[in-house]
Amino acid sequence: MAALQFTLQHTDNQSKARAGHIVTDHGEIATPIFMPVGTVGSVKAVSQQQLKEEVNASIILGNTYHLYLRPGTRVLEKAGGLHRFNGWDRPILTDSGGYQVFSLAGTRKITEEGALFQSHIDGSKHMFSPEAVMDIQRTIGADIIMAFDECPPYPSDYKYAEKSMHLTHRWLDRCFKRFNETPDKYGYTQNLFPIVQGSTYTDLRKASCEHIASKEATGNAIGGLSVGEPDNMLYDLCGLCCDNLPVHKPRYLMGVGTPWNILECIALGVDMFDCVMPTRNGRNAMLFTSQGVINIDNKKWEHDFSPLDDGIDCLVSNYYSKAYLRHLIKAKEILGLTIASVHNLAFYLWLVRQARHHILQGDFVSWKNEMVVRLQTRL
Amino acid sequence: MAALQFTLQHTDNQSKARAGHIVTDHGEIATPIFMPVGTVGSVKAVSQQQLKEEVNASIILGNTYHLYLRPGTRVLEKAGGLHRFNGWDRPILTDSGGYQVFSLAGTRKITEEGALFQSHIDGSKHMFSPEAVMDIQRTIGADIIMAFDECPPYPSDYKYAEKSMHLTHRWLDRCFKRFNETPDKYGYTQNLFPIVQGSTYTDLRKASCEHIASKEATGNAIGGLSVGEPDNMLYDLCGLCCDNLPVHKPRYLMGVGTPWNILECIALGVDMFDCVMPTRNGRNAMLFTSQGVINIDNKKWEHDFSPLDDGIDCLVSNYYSKAYLRHLIKAKEILGLTIASVHNLAFYLWLVRQARHHILQGDFVSWKNEMVVRLQTRL
Repeated sequence: MAALQFTLQHTDNQSKARAGHIVTDHGEIATPIFMPVGTVGSVKAVSQQQLKEEVNASIILGNTYHLYLRPGTRVLEKAGGLHRFNGWDRPILTDSGGYQVFSLAGTRKITEEGALFQSHIDGSKHMFSPEAVMDIQRTIGADIIMAFDECPPYPSDYKYAEKSMHLTHRWLDRCFKRFNETPDKYGYTQNLFPIVQGSTYTDLRKASCEHIASKEATGNAIGGLSVGEPDNMLYDLCGLCCDNLPVHKPRYLMGVGTPWNILECIALGVDMFDCVMPTRNGRNAMLFTSQGVINIDNKKWEHDFSPLDDGIDCLVSNYYSKAYLRHLIKAKEILGLTIASVHNLAFYLWLVRQARHHILQGDFVSWKNEMVVRLQTRL
Repeated sequence: MAALQFTLQHTDNQSKARAGHIVTDHGEIATPIFMPVGTVGSVKAVSQQQLKEEVNASIILGNTYHLYLRPGTRVLEKAGGLHRFNGWDRPILTDSGGYQVFSLAGTRKITEEGALFQSHIDGSKHMFSPEAVMDIQRTIGADIIMAFDECPPYPSDYKYAEKSMHLTHRWLDRCFKRFNETPDKYGYTQNLFPIVQGSTYTDLRKASCEHIASKEATGNAIGGLSVGEPDNMLYDLCGLCCDNLPVHKPRYLMGVGTPWNILECIALGVDMFDCVMPTRNGRNAMLFTSQGVINIDNKKWEHDFSPLDDGIDCLVSNYYSKAYLRHLIKAKEILGLTIASVHNLAFYLWLVRQARHHILQGDFVSWKNEMVVRLQTRL
């Protein structure tokens, strides 16, 4: 059993897009990759079989905040970790719970020690410290564990952003200390990724990248983006971070985004993405397809018996028609939520495989520029 | 393309249980069979792939009342029938809408002409006559079409039950007239099954069986049971109907029931069953298993990492643990509803396959008597 290994296979010569290869103890991941979000140990409305066979996911996420509250670490430890609990035998990444605590919970208080928060389920009080969050993620059994960070809101003033960044850096030191003092829990290697913060300030982002790079982790993440800032600012800050993070380590842009966001950020040098958008928007009748965006609720699809998307290689997207899915969504049938979620995730995974293909083939930028326009078309 | 054919393969010599074989233009059905209910063109929370691969369903139901209101006959006709609309290429049976109109709709009025009712969706007024219901089911494209009947409530007084039965018989004559005057809609043969009524009165049930048998339909149904009467009364009346219906035609007991109800009624000579129980109860955390009944919500399953049911041959039932399903149900995850529904349906289909096996093997009654006790055990 060995630490995560990243091989940079090819870098585009017209952009900073990269094709790479990650090896973990639970399997291999071709990059760029999109990771479906499995909040409480289930990618919403999608079965593990569908994730493998239809979506073709090679790694999924779990949310530490949600898993800590339910089913709780006692159940997960008894199960032998999340992989054994939910039957997903490919890699899992867990976030640190920081973002969730700051954005979801009602009353929370941040101190040097950590974050005090209330459960959204029963209002009970809990403390997340860097040490606690390392222990929890060890117990969940993620292949990739994220550092505990503070994600400042957008916009934040410089003073707050700077103070917050330094707190995140001090917490990072404590995360690594605890992580290095504790053993892998279930016989396979767990890896800790630090997170760049610094809000919208280029000097802070640069300083944060330097601090993060000094940790020589097996991979690095960019946090605090896609929190409300305009797309151009996202791209500028993402590009800056990519330029200041190690070349031979995977770069993970957290919580991004639309299909066109993902393509633009691949061009800037990002290797890993996650976002709830394909599943959440799918449950709200919005489909991303190879020809553009569909609101399947719309009456125009009532008699359209063509497949959801015959431009991608997913059986579900080719099997079910627009008219049938519209009917299911109108009738509030659970199967509608599943089909929309499976399709959107399969589309995201298809998109990053296509990106990889074009990076390796050498025509990534022209393909990307065409796709960014086409994918935003309202059908 | 040919009318439904039924071959009686074996009749048990210790009971009236039968093993048979039905051929339709959309495929073959080994009996006894259980038919999952796909109300608005989707078996709730279960995909067509799961129905085939996990559940092993050879025929499903559609509800005429629901499909008529949404997506409506115009969409279904344009699609080329329900099979093409929902991508289910095996046989489909539709109920007549009568039971739904009488039990679901708020205000409805029954006259000689038919039933006037209000949509549960928008309150709009509609009329179901025997002729209209034949036309609607023709357009839905069911392989097996059910006669339009009145299902009297339990209990009904003799006078009402008698009057209602005669109305159902007059409606039946009109159903057959319309059915015989209209062609198959999509190139395959559609079959009309008449329905025995007569409430809880043995002389009425007998008279109804005689009237129904005189139609010489390709199959016959028993309606108006499992509407609140005690199990013993259900069995008595079901047995009486089986004894008075043609031997060489399949007998379909509508809307029944629990796993033990199904085994007892197989012993009385029923060949076909449908019920919402496996899906509806599944969505409410109740699992039927080969060892008994489980309330998966219960705390006792919190740390039970054993499979849902390793006594049956369904992958889903063997893949997911009780603790994981409990967690999903507690966290209100959609996947929990899917897993519980797939498991319960797979269990029902496993049960009728086992029944068939034991009928052919000659030890049905002893097996059934053991199972009826075991399946009711609260685990």
